[in-house]
Amino acid sequence: MSTTSSPATETTPEQLETVLAAAATAAPAWAATPSTTRARALVAVADALLAHADDLVPVGMRETGLAEARLRGELLRTAVQLRLFADTVVDGSYLDVRIDEADPDFALGARPELRRVLVPLGPVLNFAASNFPFAFSVAGGDTAAILAAGCPVILKVHDGHPGLSLATAAVVEDALRASGAPDGVFQTIVGQDAGVTALRDERVRAGSFTGSLRAGRILADIAAARPVPIPFFGELGSVNPVFVTGQAVEESGEAIATGFVGSVAGSAGQLCTKPGFVYLPEAAGLDDTIRTAAEAVPEHRLLNDRITAGYAERRDTILGTPGVRVIAEGSLRVDADGDGWATPTIVAVSIDALRTGRDRLLDEAFGPLSILVEVPADTPLAPLVAEFCEGNLTATLHAGAEEMSDDLVELVGQLSAHAGRVLFGGWPTGVAVTPAMQHGGPWPATTNDSSTSVGTAAITRFLRPVAFQNMPDRFLPAVLRSDAVGIPAAVAPAGASKQWGEAATA
Amino acid sequence: MSTTSSPATETTPEQLETVLAAAATAAPAWAATPSTTRARALVAVADALLAHADDLVPVGMRETGLAEARLRGELLRTAVQLRLFADTVVDGSYLDVRIDEADPDFALGARPELRRVLVPLGPVLNFAASNFPFAFSVAGGDTAAILAAGCPVILKVHDGHPGLSLATAAVVEDALRASGAPDGVFQTIVGQDAGVTALRDERVRAGSFTGSLRAGRILADIAAARPVPIPFFGELGSVNPVFVTGQAVEESGEAIATGFVGSVAGSAGQLCTKPGFVYLPEAAGLDDTIRTAAEAVPEHRLLNDRITAGYAERRDTILGTPGVRVIAEGSLRVDADGDGWATPTIVAVSIDALRTGRDRLLDEAFGPLSILVEVPADTPLAPLVAEFCEGNLTATLHAGAEEMSDDLVELVGQLSAHAGRVLFGGWPTGVAVTPAMQHGGPWPATTNDSSTSVGTAAITRFLRPVAFQNMPDRFLPAVLRSDAVGIPAAVAPAGASKQWGEAATA
Repeated sequence: MSTTSSPATETTPEQLETVLAAAATAAPAWAATPSTTRARALVAVADALLAHADDLVPVGMRETGLAEARLRGELLRTAVQLRLFADTVVDGSYLDVRIDEADPDFALGARPELRRVLVPLGPVLNFAASNFPFAFSVAGGDTAAILAAGCPVILKVHDGHPGLSLATAAVVEDALRASGAPDGVFQTIVGQDAGVTALRDERVRAGSFTGSLRAGRILADIAAARPVPIPFFGELGSVNPVFVTGQAVEESGEAIATGFVGSVAGSAGQLCTKPGFVYLPEAAGLDDTIRTAAEAVPEHRLLNDRITAGYAERRDTILGTPGVRVIAEGSLRVDADGDGWATPTIVAVSIDALRTGRDRLLDEAFGPLSILVEVPADTPLAPLVAEFCEGNLTATLHAGAEEMSDDLVELVGQLSAHAGRVLFGGWPTGVAVTPAMQHGGPWPATTNDSSTSVGTAAITRFLRPVAFQNMPDRFLPAVLRSDAVGIPAAVAPAGASKQWGEAATA
Repeated sequence: MSTTSSPATETTPEQLETVLAAAATAAPAWAATPSTTRARALVAVADALLAHADDLVPVGMRETGLAEARLRGELLRTAVQLRLFADTVVDGSYLDVRIDEADPDFALGARPELRRVLVPLGPVLNFAASNFPFAFSVAGGDTAAILAAGCPVILKVHDGHPGLSLATAAVVEDALRASGAPDGVFQTIVGQDAGVTALRDERVRAGSFTGSLRAGRILADIAAARPVPIPFFGELGSVNPVFVTGQAVEESGEAIATGFVGSVAGSAGQLCTKPGFVYLPEAAGLDDTIRTAAEAVPEHRLLNDRITAGYAERRDTILGTPGVRVIAEGSLRVDADGDGWATPTIVAVSIDALRTGRDRLLDEAFGPLSILVEVPADTPLAPLVAEFCEGNLTATLHAGAEEMSDDLVELVGQLSAHAGRVLFGGWPTGVAVTPAMQHGGPWPATTNDSSTSVGTAAITRFLRPVAFQNMPDRFLPAVLRSDAVGIPAAVAPAGASKQWGEAATA
């Protein structure tokens, strides 16, 4: 994207040291900032981003090739996400406060009073993604969750949209400063060297990342190999399998075919939840609908030249694999500016061809390409998951409205063993930002499938528990004091331990 | 302990394959077992252990040198812990169920229905500890949490108490079988090779460990370097600093001195929460009380020859460090059977001597040794934490009943930044098994300070979230269906998103 990106100067070692020192200094101050103040700062950032939409969106369009409507929607999502975390902070449930009352008659002898709460980890290094220049970048979900948790953010800018990144960062910094947040609570760094050096620095206490499996594995290994290892939350790759039954085809085949192409084509398929494989009945009769829909999709620019090159290679490999039948060949061209442009490519393979060509076919193709897998009639679907699916962010079942069988129940069980979100009907693209969302799944979808990067549970990645034993109010964090109001707490009353186990056997 | 331990045959590669296959087979069956059945099985194990106390305790005494009262108390703790997890399973809060109602008027467009729940990870490899032959071994806290979570256990027996391990395992297996638990839900393996091979096996989905920093780091690195990395929860080492103010010495110096020696001497100091460093005022005048109390402690056998050798080396190093003043030299001898026996060794150093000798002094001494650090009057205490303390399981403050200062507030803040449990008064040994307990802390106390190995929150280590989107009841896990009763759930009602952020700015 050299022709469309503003230059962003790489962070020097001296600058990085200043950033790390400022983040470490800001950490206790931000952690001690009252939750209402932190929440107001998040809302202020949300409002400032929306107020600057007309400045930011055109820069994003230039640098990423994404459409105006998509970017305006994404900016709104980014603001809504900041506001959701603001409410999460004020609500306080995320602190998981637990209080054991002192109990002289505890089953194992006298029990002390214990008050447990989650506390911020400290500075977090957040590697921005290329494919969501707002929602998974400078002011995106990770930044919102990190700030909400009470941790400073060191944001490693993605080189795919440097101009937008720096413009967004200026908006964020101004809004935080005006809200009274301490200096150093949000800072950006530029360049791969600075990112890797920061990940190794002892002042950085956690990392978050959205990007390729290759880069994510390298960074996860660095985080794990430190003298003091730190948690690293990487979202790496997912092919999001979809299973369609014959009954579903009968009831709504045409809608499935057009919905599928829409989900593959949106944002030129550069979404981590793009459906990469659709297992459907042989001779389902949907080829023409799919081809027509795919051929109606206008050319869409790809995010950057690395993604164009990667997509070209995956597409060539797939098209060159024996047994692959082209339904819609789509296009891929590089223009005079070096930008890649593509329309959807949809192919089909038999189960046998998939089995033979698995090493060429099963990896993610990041871009507007998807593979239909044609399943012979009466083939049990559940075993296909173990045979062909690694870990995924999502998995989807299209079945008849009332359809039910042991195989389908087993299939849903297998899908939930291989994905973090399992859909009935619909398509996995378009991730709702809500309290119950799960965006994370077994490796290689994420490095840590006990976490999510979307939804309110994302905040827990940046917290750890501390229990205070017999601690007087004057030394407790405010949320644990006897006069704390409105903080949800799970209280274990004195005397209860004598009955432990009776609930289980009643 | 060759003279006192029963032989335990190392698991062969063929046997290990059988164990791994059985665990993988048991995983979906145990995960699908209703929570009440799982809970009853845990209670049955608890009852069976207590019923076999007279068989098990003497074996434990022979193999570990621990006293009868300690082992009977520990067995009761182990049973109570199983019962606590039984109630945890029945209660269902641990599932963190979240439900977003479908919302056509969601802030970002129509929102699907989402139902999120935590599901079991699959087979977990649990490395038993030597120092709690019941509570952190075969049927200990990790086993209870793993089974409660719905995961099969592969228990790597500690070679310090092989006879007790196999006898305990037989009790556990019988109780589980009688409760209808699937075959393969609890199995033991013997030998370091089998443990390492299992940790690398793709069927194993998580590891837990209590032991040395050296071994724990090796295992954590293996878990992180797998083609598919898995979570590894290791409890490694902790020196549990204690800070005593002059006011505390004035108010209760004698009680602090005798309480300190009791905490160091118990179980011959072979506890992960033993207070290894006590920062107290210079010339506090407690030397005689400490010496008298320490010299009154009878000789106690050490757990095994590795621990004897390690303790001898650490003790020699500390006693040979310039500036170390002996208060009670204690004893350490190896008897004709090769067993080590010790009485408490208490030494004192100045701040300056600690600074000069930090490389020799700051590491954990696993055994009945503790170091008093003599702090000149008017020295701020809070900065000592950053200078001398790494991560710890616990940290303790003894201050006056009404004492208060900015330095003490800052000290408690520093202690909570360096430990998972912060005590006011009392001693860190004797960990209560309760809902609010936190037993885990920053590296090197644990590999993962967002987790605990004691208390109900320990169950979450072995679970991951799955969200079901628009999924009909017939395909949902029972706890998520519309007719599920008694499962606590956080519901996000339709319409609420329009007000997100208002709570924060109200």
